[in-house]
Amino acid sequence: MTPTITAFQRSPDRGRGLARDMRVRWAFEEVGQSYEVRLVSLGAHKEPAHRALHPFGQIPTYEDGDLVLFESGAIVFHIAQRHAGLLPGDANARARAMTWMFAALSTVEPPILDLHNTKLLEGDKSWYEQRLPVVEDRIRVRLGELSARLGDAHWLDGAFSAGDLMMVAVLLRLKTSGLLDEYPNLSAYVARGEARPAYKRAFDAQLAAFTASSRTG
Amino acid sequence: MTPTITAFQRSPDRGRGLARDMRVRWAFEEVGQSYEVRLVSLGAHKEPAHRALHPFGQIPTYEDGDLVLFESGAIVFHIAQRHAGLLPGDANARARAMTWMFAALSTVEPPILDLHNTKLLEGDKSWYEQRLPVVEDRIRVRLGELSARLGDAHWLDGAFSAGDLMMVAVLLRLKTSGLLDEYPNLSAYVARGEARPAYKRAFDAQLAAFTASSRTG
Repeated sequence: MTPTITAFQRSPDRGRGLARDMRVRWAFEEVGQSYEVRLVSLGAHKEPAHRALHPFGQIPTYEDGDLVLFESGAIVFHIAQRHAGLLPGDANARARAMTWMFAALSTVEPPILDLHNTKLLEGDKSWYEQRLPVVEDRIRVRLGELSARLGDAHWLDGAFSAGDLMMVAVLLRLKTSGLLDEYPNLSAYVARGEARPAYKRAFDAQLAAFTASSRTG
Repeated sequence: MTPTITAFQRSPDRGRGLARDMRVRWAFEEVGQSYEVRLVSLGAHKEPAHRALHPFGQIPTYEDGDLVLFESGAIVFHIAQRHAGLLPGDANARARAMTWMFAALSTVEPPILDLHNTKLLEGDKSWYEQRLPVVEDRIRVRLGELSARLGDAHWLDGAFSAGDLMMVAVLLRLKTSGLLDEYPNLSAYVARGEARPAYKRAFDAQLAAFTASSRTG
C-alpha cells in the first residue's frame, strides 16, 4: 500500500521547499519509496477533520492503512526504519543519527522558528526592531557550535543520514536571512544537501504542487 | 557496562527536577537499568572537554563504552529501544509513541522554552511586560490542542510510553507559571506522571545530587 501524506495547497512559502512536507518527501525519495499527497487548504488544517489526524493542526501527516502519524521527525524516522538508505546499519551509528535528528528539531530549529515567528507575528510590535538582533544572536550561538562540530566534514557523522536530512532542512529556513553565509562550512553543507538527486526530486514535486494549486485556485 | 550520564552540579533549577537529566534518569528508572552520573559544574559545560561529548554545551550526555550520545530525546529513545517498558511491542503503536516524543520536543516545548528564555534573558528589556502575554498565549494554543486530544484518557495513546514521559517532562516546566492549572486534564496528566514510582526515584536522585553539591560547594 502506498502511504499518503498531507501538504498545504498553495503553501505559504510559495513552493520554496520550506514547508515540513518537504522533509518527508525528501526522505521518501532518498529511500526510493513512492507516496501520495493529499493537499489541505489553508484554514482546513485547523478544522476537526484534519485535527483528527494531527492534534496540533499542522502538516504533514502520514497515513498507511490503519497507521496515522504526525510530526515530520517521527515520519522521517518511520520511513528510515522501514527502508534502507537513511540510517546506518551499525547500532551505535544509528543511535548517533537519531541524536542529530533530535538536535536539528529540538536544539537548532527552535531559535530559527523564533526568528520566523518574530518576523511574522511581531513585525508590527513596538519592540520588533530592538528584539530582532537578540533573536538572531541566539541563532548565531547554535550555528557557531554546529559549524565547529562539522568542521570540514561532508556530513555530521560519516555517511549522509536522516540526521543530515533533518539538519539541512532546518538550516534551509535561514537561507534568505543571510545568517547562514556567516558560516561557510554550513552554507556548503546545506548546498551538498540541496545537490542530492533525491532532494531535487522532492523539491520539484512540492513546487509543482504549489504551481498547480495556484493556477487552479 | 553501566552507562554514564552527565548532569549539572548545583543545577540552576535547584533540584526541582526541571533539568534535562531528569528525563533520562526517569527513563532508566522506568526500565530498571542502573546508571552512573558525572556532575559537570556550571561553566564547565561550555568548555572543550564537555563540548567533545556535546557540541551544543548542554547536559545530559550519555556514554556507554565507545558510544556517546546527546539530546535527551535521543537518549531516552536509545534506552527505550534497548530495554522493555517504555515502548509498546506493536510496531504501529511504537511509531505513534515516537510521534508523541517528537511532538513533546518540537511542538510543545519550543513555546515553553520561549517563556523561560523571555523571563531569564529579557526580564530587563523595555518590551518584557508587553511581550509576556504574547508568549503565554502561544503556549495556551498548544495546551488547548493537547488537552483536546488527551480528553479523559490517562495517557496519550494507550499505556504509558516514552512519549508520555517526554510530554510530562516538558509540561512540568510550566508548573510554577500557573498556565497548566487552566487545563485540569493536563494538570491531572502531569500529576499521574509525577506519581509513578520511577519518576519519584529519579526525582529524589537528582535532588540528592543538588543537595550534596550545594553542601560541599
